[in-house]
Amino acid sequence: MKRPHRVTIDRVAAESRVSRQTVSNVLNYPERVAPDTLRRVRLAIERLGYQPDRSARTMVRRRAGQVGYCLSPNSTGFMDDFLRALCAAVEASGSHLLLFTAPEGEAGLAVYADLIAQRAVDGFVCAHVVDDDPRPAWLHERGVPFAMFGRTWSSGPRPGPQPGPWVDVDGAGAAAALVAGLRELGHSRIAFLDWAGATGAMLDRGRGCAEACRAAGLPPPLAVRAEEYDSASAERAVRAALAAEDAPTAVVAASDILAVGAVHAAYAAGLRVGEDLAVTGFDDSVVAPLCPPGLTSVRQPVEVITAALVERLRDQDAGGLLVQGEVVVRLSAPIATR
Amino acid sequence: MKRPHRVTIDRVAAESRVSRQTVSNVLNYPERVAPDTLRRVRLAIERLGYQPDRSARTMVRRRAGQVGYCLSPNSTGFMDDFLRALCAAVEASGSHLLLFTAPEGEAGLAVYADLIAQRAVDGFVCAHVVDDDPRPAWLHERGVPFAMFGRTWSSGPRPGPQPGPWVDVDGAGAAAALVAGLRELGHSRIAFLDWAGATGAMLDRGRGCAEACRAAGLPPPLAVRAEEYDSASAERAVRAALAAEDAPTAVVAASDILAVGAVHAAYAAGLRVGEDLAVTGFDDSVVAPLCPPGLTSVRQPVEVITAALVERLRDQDAGGLLVQGEVVVRLSAPIATR
Repeated sequence: MKRPHRVTIDRVAAESRVSRQTVSNVLNYPERVAPDTLRRVRLAIERLGYQPDRSARTMVRRRAGQVGYCLSPNSTGFMDDFLRALCAAVEASGSHLLLFTAPEGEAGLAVYADLIAQRAVDGFVCAHVVDDDPRPAWLHERGVPFAMFGRTWSSGPRPGPQPGPWVDVDGAGAAAALVAGLRELGHSRIAFLDWAGATGAMLDRGRGCAEACRAAGLPPPLAVRAEEYDSASAERAVRAALAAEDAPTAVVAASDILAVGAVHAAYAAGLRVGEDLAVTGFDDSVVAPLCPPGLTSVRQPVEVITAALVERLRDQDAGGLLVQGEVVVRLSAPIATR
Repeated sequence: MKRPHRVTIDRVAAESRVSRQTVSNVLNYPERVAPDTLRRVRLAIERLGYQPDRSARTMVRRRAGQVGYCLSPNSTGFMDDFLRALCAAVEASGSHLLLFTAPEGEAGLAVYADLIAQRAVDGFVCAHVVDDDPRPAWLHERGVPFAMFGRTWSSGPRPGPQPGPWVDVDGAGAAAALVAGLRELGHSRIAFLDWAGATGAMLDRGRGCAEACRAAGLPPPLAVRAEEYDSASAERAVRAALAAEDAPTAVVAASDILAVGAVHAAYAAGLRVGEDLAVTGFDDSVVAPLCPPGLTSVRQPVEVITAALVERLRDQDAGGLLVQGEVVVRLSAPIATR
C-alpha cells in the first residue's frame, strides 16, 4: 500500500509563491488577502489536497463573529436586564450573541463542546454560576476564550480556585453597606434571610452582613432560613422569626424574591414595612419597585459588568474584577445613601 | 475596453462535467457532494472566476443554521420566559438563536438588513410588535422567512393587514373570561385599567372586557387610564376612581404592571384586595405571584406559542394562529376557573 504523503502549509506556500502567513490568512482571514493571491493560494490548496491539521486550525481559525451565552433554566427578573446589556456590549465589540440552552453543571458541557466543534462561537460569556461550576476549568483547559459573570464557590462562603477571567459584584461589601445604613436608622436587631440551598454568592452576602454587625458592635445577625427558594417559604420563615421573643426589626434578604416574603410576613403581622420592620433585597429586580411600599435593594451595574466581561473575552489574562453594587433606596428601608 | 464575459452556472457545470444542481449544491450544501466532485467543481469555479448572482444565492443559499431575534429595549418579566422557550424551540428545530438589539420601528430595519446581507440568519422571529410595525411587510417583500409574535395594530383595537405568519394570544377572549368570572363573584361595577399610550393589544383586551359586560347585561366598564406606563401612575389613577361616587369593585388591568398599581391603591384606601376590590392582571409575569395577596392574571402559553412560531418559520403560508390565554387564579380575584 502506498503511504499517503502529508501536504504541509510550507508546501502550499512554496507552490503558490507566498509566505506561510499568507496561506494562514487565506484559510482564516480571507478578507485580508488580495483577490489574485487568494485565488492562487486556493488553487494550490485544492490542487495539492492540503488539509490544515486540527491544532493549526484551532490556533488560527476564522472568527465566527459570535459569542455564546447560555440561558439559565432558572428565571430571575434581573437577568433580563443583564442579557440586554450583554447583547449591546457584544455588538459594540463587533460580534453577535448566540443564545443557547444547556443543563447546569457537568451535564451541560456537551453543549459547549458541540458549539466549539461547530465553530459557532469564538468564546463564551458564562453566568448563572453554580457551586463547583466545572466551566472555567473545562474551557481554560481547551484554550477557549471565556469570561465568567460570578465567582465559583465551593459549597461555602469563600471563592475556590477559578482559572480565567471573571467579573462579579461585591455581595459582602453591599451587605455591609446595608447594615451600616440600617444601624443609622436605629436598628440593632438585624436578621439575615437566605434559604436552605443558598449558593456561595448568597452566603457571601451573609458573611458581609455578619462582619458589618461585628464591626459595628451589634449582636450577630439572626439567621432566618427559608426551606424553599420562593416568597411563600420566606414568608413562613420570617413570620416565625417575628413571633419569637427576640424578633428582628430589620431583615437583610439575600435576594428580592426572599425579601418579598419578608414584606408579606410584615403585612400579615400588622407591621408597617419600612417603619416597624425594615426590609432590604438584592438584585434590584423588576419586583423591587413593584413590591409595596417599594423594596430597598442592591443594583448590579449591568453596563459596567457586561463591558468588563466582553473586554475579558479578548484579554484572557485580565483576571478578576469585583464591582461595587449600588444601593437603591425605597420605602421598605429608607436608609441614607452616601 | 474589453467587456467582461459573464460566467454562468451552466458554464461551470459543463467545465466540471456535473449537473447544474451539483454546482448549486457545491455552493450551498457542500456536505451533500462527494469530496472528489467537490474539489473538481471548486477548481472550475476558481479557474473561471465564477460569481453566483444575488438572486441565485438568495434562492439556494447555504443555511446559516440560525434564527434572529431582536431584544426589546423595554423589559417585562414575561419575555424572560418567552425567550427561554423560544431558544429551546429553535434548538429543537436544529438551529441556534442569534440575539440582537435594534431600535423599534423603521429605524431598526437597517439592523435586519445587515443581518440578512451577512447571511447571519435564515429568518427572524419578531416580538415586541409596535403599532403599524413595519417589519412584516418589509420582510415579506424581501422573501425573508419570519414569524411574528403578535398582530400589528393600526393605532386602534383592530388588527391591520399583516402579510406573513403570526401567532398571538386572544386578549379580548381572555378579558371576557375574566369578566365572566368576576360577575360570578357578584361584581357588576368593573373598571378596565390601561394607560394613555396603550398599544393595540391592550385596547383589544379592553374591547373584550366591554363586549363581555354588554353581553352579560352589566354597565359598560369604567375607563381608568394611567398617564404613564408604571405602577405608580396606575396607582394614582385607581385611587381617583376609588374615591369617586361610582367606585368600581373590580379592576381588570391591561397588564400586571398596571394591576400592581391597582393593588397599591386598594391597600392605600384600606380595602382588602380580593374581597373589597378584585384585581386582575395580564401576562402572569414574575410579579404576579409576588404581589400580595397574589395576582390573578392571564398566562401566555409560551411553549405552544414558540413551537407555532418556529413551525411558521418553515411554512410561511401557515397564516395566523390565535392562542387561548390561561387564567391563573390567585387571591386578588378568586374567580372560578372552568
